[in-house]
Amino acid sequence: MTAPRTPLWKSISAALTDDLGNGRYGPGDKLPTEAELASRFGVNRHTVRHALKDLSDRGLVLSRRGAGVFVTQSPTEYPIGRRVRFHQNVRAAGRLPSRKTLSTETRAADPREARALDLPQGAPVHVAEGLSLADDQPLAHFRSVFPADRMPDLLVHLAETSSVTEALKACGVTDYTRKSTRVTAKLATATQALHLQCREGDPVLRTISLSVDLQGHPVEYGHTWFSGDRVTLTLGDDEDV
Amino acid sequence: MTAPRTPLWKSISAALTDDLGNGRYGPGDKLPTEAELASRFGVNRHTVRHALKDLSDRGLVLSRRGAGVFVTQSPTEYPIGRRVRFHQNVRAAGRLPSRKTLSTETRAADPREARALDLPQGAPVHVAEGLSLADDQPLAHFRSVFPADRMPDLLVHLAETSSVTEALKACGVTDYTRKSTRVTAKLATATQALHLQCREGDPVLRTISLSVDLQGHPVEYGHTWFSGDRVTLTLGDDEDV
Repeated sequence: MTAPRTPLWKSISAALTDDLGNGRYGPGDKLPTEAELASRFGVNRHTVRHALKDLSDRGLVLSRRGAGVFVTQSPTEYPIGRRVRFHQNVRAAGRLPSRKTLSTETRAADPREARALDLPQGAPVHVAEGLSLADDQPLAHFRSVFPADRMPDLLVHLAETSSVTEALKACGVTDYTRKSTRVTAKLATATQALHLQCREGDPVLRTISLSVDLQGHPVEYGHTWFSGDRVTLTLGDDEDV
Repeated sequence: MTAPRTPLWKSISAALTDDLGNGRYGPGDKLPTEAELASRFGVNRHTVRHALKDLSDRGLVLSRRGAGVFVTQSPTEYPIGRRVRFHQNVRAAGRLPSRKTLSTETRAADPREARALDLPQGAPVHVAEGLSLADDQPLAHFRSVFPADRMPDLLVHLAETSSVTEALKACGVTDYTRKSTRVTAKLATATQALHLQCREGDPVLRTISLSVDLQGHPVEYGHTWFSGDRVTLTLGDDEDV
C-alpha cells in the first residue's frame, strides 16, 4: 500500500493531459514553448521534453520541427443516455465515425450472456468484435452479443452496413434504447493497447450495457473498452460543465 | 506506440480482478487454491502467488494462513442517474457510508467554476474536499464547489452533518438533481493513491458533475475520483447486466 513518488515528467504530462481534457488547449492549438512550460512547472527543459514526448507517444500532441508542439485532439464526448448511437455520437463531436470489424461468430451464449439477454442457457448468440473509430483513430474496442434465433441474419447485415442500428433495423428491430450501462476504469492490457493504439497500462473506460427494443426485450449485450485519454462519457445535459 | 508484453502474473491478476468485478467470486468467497489457479491459467505456482500478492496489495483479497485466500470485497455499485445521493447509494450496496472532510475553504471561483455555477467571475465559492468511505474503506476522493453568496453557512452545516444533502437543506435547498455527469478514466497519482489507499497508477474513474435545485439553478459543482477497482458506476436499471 506504499505509493512511490511520481516522476516529475509524469506529473507534468498528467497536468497537460488535464489541460487538454478541460479544453484549456484545444485541437490545433500550439502548446506553450518548452521554456514557458519549464517556468510554469518549475522544472528544467529536459523534464518538460520528457513529458511532451509522453503526450506525443499517446497521440495527444504532434511535434512539428521548428514550429512547436500542437494539440492533435481533445477527448471525444460520448453521450451514454437512453439513446446511444455510435455514428450519431461521433458526428455530433465533429468527427468522422467508422467501424472496423475484427471478428464475428455464432456460438452458444455463456451463462452471463444468456442471463443478460434473457435466453435459455446455451442458446445461440451472434458475437461481433471490432473497433469504433473517429477520424480513423480508435476510440473503442467493442464486443457485442445478439440473440441469434431472433435475428438469424444479423451478421450479414452488420457486414454490409457496419452500423448496429441499421443491422438491427434490417432484422426488424425498428428502434431500441439503452436499458443500463455499468462503467468501470481499467488499465489497458497489451492486446487492448494494440487495438486502441495506446500503451499498456493506459487508462481505459469499460462499459457493460444492455439495449432493449420498444417492447423491452433485450437485443444487444455489449462490452466496450474506450480509450480513457480520448473519450469522455457524458450523461445528461452537460453544456455547463 | 509499442505495447510491451504483459508479465504473466499481471494478466492473471487482471483476469481474477475481472472475476471479482463480475461476481464470479463474491465477498467472503474462498478463491481456488494456488494449484487450481496454476492449472486454470497454465502457469506455475510462483506466478500465481505473484498475482495473488498483487490482489492482496490492492485490498481485494485477504490471505489467511492455512485457510486460503478470501475475497474481501466486490466493487460497490454506485448509481449516477438524476438523483445521486452518496449515503443512500452506499447503504443500498449493503455498506456503511461515511464522509471524512480533508479541507474546506471559501475563495474566489476560478473561471471554470464560475461558468459551471453560473456566477460572475471571481464570485466567492465554498470548497470542500474529502473522502467518501464505505465500511471505512475509501471509495472516492471528492472536491465540491458551492456558490457562497447563496449559502453563506454551508460549510458550518457540512461540518455538523457531513452530508451534502443535509447541509444544502439547512441552506434552504430542499431538493436537487444531477444535471450532468462527465466520466473519464485516469491513473491514480501518488497523492490520490494515498487518499484512496490504492497504488499509484491504479485505475481511477473521475466524474465532473453539476447539480441544480428544482428551479434549475446550480448548487454544486463536483469533481470525484473513484477507485476503479472498488466502484462501478451504474446508469439505468441494471438488474440484468
